[in-house]
Amino acid sequence: MSGRLMVIGLGPGEVPGMTVQAVEALERADCFYGYGPYLDRVLGADDPRRVASDNREEGERAREALERAAGGECVAVLSGGDPGVFAMAAAVCEQIERGPKSFRQLAVEIIPGVSAMLAAAAACGAPLGHDFCAISLSDNLKPWSTIERRLTLAAEAGLVMALYNPISKARPWQLGEALERLRDYLPGGTVVVFAHAAGRRNQSVVNTTLARASADQANMATLVIIGSEQTRVIKRTKQPPLIYTPRYAPGFEPGELH
Amino acid sequence: MSGRLMVIGLGPGEVPGMTVQAVEALERADCFYGYGPYLDRVLGADDPRRVASDNREEGERAREALERAAGGECVAVLSGGDPGVFAMAAAVCEQIERGPKSFRQLAVEIIPGVSAMLAAAAACGAPLGHDFCAISLSDNLKPWSTIERRLTLAAEAGLVMALYNPISKARPWQLGEALERLRDYLPGGTVVVFAHAAGRRNQSVVNTTLARASADQANMATLVIIGSEQTRVIKRTKQPPLIYTPRYAPGFEPGELH
Repeated sequence: MSGRLMVIGLGPGEVPGMTVQAVEALERADCFYGYGPYLDRVLGADDPRRVASDNREEGERAREALERAAGGECVAVLSGGDPGVFAMAAAVCEQIERGPKSFRQLAVEIIPGVSAMLAAAAACGAPLGHDFCAISLSDNLKPWSTIERRLTLAAEAGLVMALYNPISKARPWQLGEALERLRDYLPGGTVVVFAHAAGRRNQSVVNTTLARASADQANMATLVIIGSEQTRVIKRTKQPPLIYTPRYAPGFEPGELH
Repeated sequence: MSGRLMVIGLGPGEVPGMTVQAVEALERADCFYGYGPYLDRVLGADDPRRVASDNREEGERAREALERAAGGECVAVLSGGDPGVFAMAAAVCEQIERGPKSFRQLAVEIIPGVSAMLAAAAACGAPLGHDFCAISLSDNLKPWSTIERRLTLAAEAGLVMALYNPISKARPWQLGEALERLRDYLPGGTVVVFAHAAGRRNQSVVNTTLARASADQANMATLVIIGSEQTRVIKRTKQPPLIYTPRYAPGFEPGELH
């Protein structure tokens, strides 16, 4: 059996955000599975190698791709950002564990990419420059109580937070609830960043405070960053502000800086 | 003033792990600041555009690069992995905030890369497939008590942990202490991954359990991942094991899988 499954991270947007390794992997694939808009980034609309599926059918897509690979083809599963962060790599592993023995015999290659939080951070400075966490606000696959508990423990721990899947038509209230809950644990002046379409040509960044942040500032293309008490904004003239979290805790400024 | 500072993420290792955008940015730079081994990845040893500095002189390196950019050049600061994760982007922002007005007038461009934890995860499956955090074990810039507190709160929150800077000659005991502390909060069977040189040609991955994990399994090129109670190992024949964290909490298996 010579089949192979590649899970390829496309990075945040256009081709320049992909790694060289990902570009090369695309050239090796016999067929491509993915959410339509991701396929559009790398294949023509009529390309016969496309196998598009809906955004919410990740398990089914992974299973079909594995079956095709088990038949001997080199199959690419495309993932936005990094496939290992709230994306297709875990869905593929789930299906390998549940599937027939042939799935477990396949060569599997996961090609990482720039995840949305890294693109969002780069678009505004270095808000993830110190300890941080990544939490999905989608309660489709876990109870909301777990999400709230993680948010509040992360706030207590002083971790900066990157919030994935903040809002959608089917999940309209979760971000507002998360912000409200965090206001009980963090100062109103805590920096909040809404990064839209980060890493794409139409990216935009809005920074505000936890007291002023509102869920309607986000949409499905937004990555929300909640700062820690150390996260800072540098205002600049003729340049956008820079938002960053210092590498050091208060009182631990590196000696070299003095 | 036409000076520009670019902070460029080189990804985990060889050039194929860099983004196309990073490769293009390197071509625009007049000079390159960075830790010697990072400069070696993209420049010859005798290239006159090299300005190498020691790994621990990040603040000083950032300041010198900003001064040069303020003089009108297009200056690249090279960072391993992603510059926004425990790396040069925060060091540059620190110097911009403390520095002369000319620093705040510069165009600053941060070009993200594949961070070590994403390369490590891709090398073994999808251990970061659900909520997770990234914590540096270096107590050079924060008190050890803060690190312990973050580790235990992250364990309580059920977050997978990516541990950066686990060990060095100057910090020999911190990883052992962290593992010992985590044993009070997580089951002995919790999956632990030691990913060495992830994303490079000589990468290797060892997986074990929290009960068996030992600090001497790590070195300066290791990224350590501590699973959550949901993190799983798929054993395979003739293929390396796959380690992953399901996208769903127990009892929340996606309907599409049934």
